[in-house]
Amino acid sequence: MGAPFNYDVLDLTDEQVDAEVRVFGALTAAVRRLNEATLRTTVDHATVEEVRRQVEELTARLEKSMIPDNFGVSFTKGGRIRGYGNAVVGIRNPNAVPLTVVQDKVNGRASAEFELNALHEGPPGQVHGGVVALVLDQVFGEAAAAGGSPGMTGTLTLRYRLNTPLGPCSAEAWVDRRDGIKTIVKGELRRADGTVTVTAEGIFILPRWAREEIAKNGGTPPQFE
Amino acid sequence: MGAPFNYDVLDLTDEQVDAEVRVFGALTAAVRRLNEATLRTTVDHATVEEVRRQVEELTARLEKSMIPDNFGVSFTKGGRIRGYGNAVVGIRNPNAVPLTVVQDKVNGRASAEFELNALHEGPPGQVHGGVVALVLDQVFGEAAAAGGSPGMTGTLTLRYRLNTPLGPCSAEAWVDRRDGIKTIVKGELRRADGTVTVTAEGIFILPRWAREEIAKNGGTPPQFE
Repeated sequence: MGAPFNYDVLDLTDEQVDAEVRVFGALTAAVRRLNEATLRTTVDHATVEEVRRQVEELTARLEKSMIPDNFGVSFTKGGRIRGYGNAVVGIRNPNAVPLTVVQDKVNGRASAEFELNALHEGPPGQVHGGVVALVLDQVFGEAAAAGGSPGMTGTLTLRYRLNTPLGPCSAEAWVDRRDGIKTIVKGELRRADGTVTVTAEGIFILPRWAREEIAKNGGTPPQFE
Repeated sequence: MGAPFNYDVLDLTDEQVDAEVRVFGALTAAVRRLNEATLRTTVDHATVEEVRRQVEELTARLEKSMIPDNFGVSFTKGGRIRGYGNAVVGIRNPNAVPLTVVQDKVNGRASAEFELNALHEGPPGQVHGGVVALVLDQVFGEAAAAGGSPGMTGTLTLRYRLNTPLGPCSAEAWVDRRDGIKTIVKGELRRADGTVTVTAEGIFILPRWAREEIAKNGGTPPQFE
């Protein structure tokens, strides 16, 4: 793995970025649907084995040329951010929910409406508590960034008040206050009918190791979007 | 979605369960590798589009026959637990890490060694804070179960002390104490060299809505394994 804050600046036009978003985004959406079918299918074993062999062939085609490790984050000269690998929002990450987070920079808020399905199950029919944490961590980080204080999770406290059935959900987070280099964010997860099921509080901070890495590379802190 | 605690008891032999674990487990492993290749590939757009079309065809084959919604948890008459959909450990869930959690029922502990890759990225080269929470929530829940008090996450507090680079990691959790129907679990995430990067504390409890559902169905609380 490279240095954590070695941000490349790439010479890609907006048209080239739009094309990669379209082409790779469509592949990722197709693979997400395959993920769910893999879990829910009841076809016979012979068919499953044949599909597996074909999945392996397709994987080999994609693996002929790959980036060495993780996707990382890069920027274009035109200011586009290529953070396609992010575990929650990455448009090229089939494991990502996916989540489209809307940042409100005037009020330091972030929100997202999304659908959780069979892939996100914990207790039967319910969203896994860890998936709730995964989603809220991302939305909370984006609220801190929207409020002008991008950082990483320092602490995160989640209170699970009610069950969250699989299906449509929403999350919202907002900057509650600042305390020196700390940004305190509060927020919640809601069922489709608006009932709050999980509340949380997080402290976001750009930790020393990250500030040192950024200074070493002559960079400025990233605005994750 | 059905009732959250409608646990079916199926008339499957151990041999049948072993066969489905083998056949569907192999498909899931293949799809996990496709997930990573989808994120990391640098093949040309025409190849990506051709692979996407073939993925769509394979998905259609699997979708010809599917369970209606989520996978749920079922049991066999022989006592096997089919929780294959779990978002963190499910052997049929391609989004699951996957994690093999070892429960120590004598000491009320649970631990797991696993590998996080490009699919789990947050800050460049680093594990997403939400993925840390996702993994720890599962391991913590299994520690509570190993200690004889299976339950759901009531609260979870995570302290991110150091960065966690992508690669091999481990997690461990243990029952710290009990307080009435609450089980207090502590634990941590470690880098491959044993350095603790995240510490956490959780309260696990079988919430009223779950106890009521279980009573309504005449069942007993599940021992998630």
